[in-house]
Amino acid sequence: VTGEFAAIDRLMAQLPALPADAAALGEVWIGDDAAVVRTPAAPWLLLAADAVVAGVHADLRLTTLQDLGWKALVSNLSDLAAMGGSPGHALVVVAGPSDTDLDALYEGLGEAATVYDCPVVGGDLTNAPTLVVAVSVTGTAMRPPVRRSGAQAGDEIWVTGPLGASAAGLRLLRGGSDSAKGAGLRRVLETAHARPVPRLAEGRAASDAGATAMIDVSDGLAAELAHLADASGIGFELDVVPVAAGATSEEALGGGEDYELVFCAPDPSRVTEAFASLRPPVRIGRCVGPSEHRQLLGRTLESRGWQHDW
Amino acid sequence: VTGEFAAIDRLMAQLPALPADAAALGEVWIGDDAAVVRTPAAPWLLLAADAVVAGVHADLRLTTLQDLGWKALVSNLSDLAAMGGSPGHALVVVAGPSDTDLDALYEGLGEAATVYDCPVVGGDLTNAPTLVVAVSVTGTAMRPPVRRSGAQAGDEIWVTGPLGASAAGLRLLRGGSDSAKGAGLRRVLETAHARPVPRLAEGRAASDAGATAMIDVSDGLAAELAHLADASGIGFELDVVPVAAGATSEEALGGGEDYELVFCAPDPSRVTEAFASLRPPVRIGRCVGPSEHRQLLGRTLESRGWQHDW
Repeated sequence: VTGEFAAIDRLMAQLPALPADAAALGEVWIGDDAAVVRTPAAPWLLLAADAVVAGVHADLRLTTLQDLGWKALVSNLSDLAAMGGSPGHALVVVAGPSDTDLDALYEGLGEAATVYDCPVVGGDLTNAPTLVVAVSVTGTAMRPPVRRSGAQAGDEIWVTGPLGASAAGLRLLRGGSDSAKGAGLRRVLETAHARPVPRLAEGRAASDAGATAMIDVSDGLAAELAHLADASGIGFELDVVPVAAGATSEEALGGGEDYELVFCAPDPSRVTEAFASLRPPVRIGRCVGPSEHRQLLGRTLESRGWQHDW
Repeated sequence: VTGEFAAIDRLMAQLPALPADAAALGEVWIGDDAAVVRTPAAPWLLLAADAVVAGVHADLRLTTLQDLGWKALVSNLSDLAAMGGSPGHALVVVAGPSDTDLDALYEGLGEAATVYDCPVVGGDLTNAPTLVVAVSVTGTAMRPPVRRSGAQAGDEIWVTGPLGASAAGLRLLRGGSDSAKGAGLRRVLETAHARPVPRLAEGRAASDAGATAMIDVSDGLAAELAHLADASGIGFELDVVPVAAGATSEEALGGGEDYELVFCAPDPSRVTEAFASLRPPVRIGRCVGPSEHRQLLGRTLESRGWQHDW
């Protein structure tokens, strides 16, 4: 960690502290040239990085910095979930204007780090005209990670939950039309947008169930399924898209940041068994041979998702 | 890796490719939700992250994007060196304007990744008003990493090479007064600024020599020694500061980004032995008890280094 040390010390106090047992093993979190952790007792090490840019991925008039910090870590944890992995450690780089409320940002980061057991062990803090929060994470997997590329014709396609809640929440925050009847549902949708949940247990369950391919829905189901199908060289037929209460079917298909997982697996009974203690996933369709065949209820599915970047 | 996939594919072609033996072990670099590497066969895993912001850490009128890419990775490798570690893998997050010459940036990143055997295995690419390159790295160490905090009174203080060349190179690039006689030396200094070298072998040698504390000189010797002395709770007396040819003594003491290592060690003969096949380090002083005692040639040393950030 470089930057202004006094400021960093105050911020670090909002993050999970190095536990005594880790310190006894010689781990070092924050404050040296590099963090030191013990080599994980797992055969597979996962590495992912993802950035959140104010004005590009988040509108700071609608998103608090606490929520931005939460999302910046959770979007990375979702990438670990989509491989069937478990969180290890996080590094946080914050570049932003000097009047940024860093305490709020690190509060949100610290909450996600605590809830999902992914301590922030290092990073960097520097000045920049625009706020950029770049988080990277390590993770572990006890079995071969589930890639995007292993789906085969005949596999069934599953999603871990209904979609569109995050997009509907954003619509409500923007003052858009409110199909959500009642303050309770409105609050659920806004929370889905502000505090997305990484499906870590679900990702491991899919891996246990023999998933052949998996991806998280950060850019919309249609776009993510297209990535998975491209990587696997398959087509697909969808029978249903589960729509979250209060969301539109367009939001379910194209909305980003739900962070549900989509996976392919050949054996429904193994899926049912692996998810016995979790919310049951929804079977939405099947993989087919010709990769240009991509249909929802008999119609060709366009793969447009959320367009950000470049 | 998210972002525009076609663009990323082109950029990734400039980075070291996944070798067949790593692929056979199930490693995955680039293009899935997370990179997959095998757990390193070392007891210590190092994690570091560092950002370079255009206009804050680098003036794009004086620095090419190739050089910026090189520096962004090397500043992280230097953090690994300062722990006595070896490079593992890198994640690169680039946020920047859409007209950024990404090919040039990734060319420089790829050169450093190849030279120092630290492949870029994942990352993110996104739009932002200002160019921010946030790199994170994993590293390994076979013995307990050398922290900043272990120096003791009586230890001698060493630096791995003369200082100030990077600052002198920047002065020349800015058109400042040229104490460097001749084009050859000018080129050496400008290269020291544009293409800094992480002292990886030297860091491991210092660790082998029983170094009690170590830090890399990214913000100037005076500032870095102050960090080390603060962390260790010691003072120091310096007899000499080795000045790079063409640099001023002020540049040697206050200039940033030399990336030489400063370390403390109790036994000079072990230092000589460990550095037998490397450029011999220079003994510059010793650690003393009272932590407020920080002198260079009998005068109190101010700890001002390069001021960036917050």
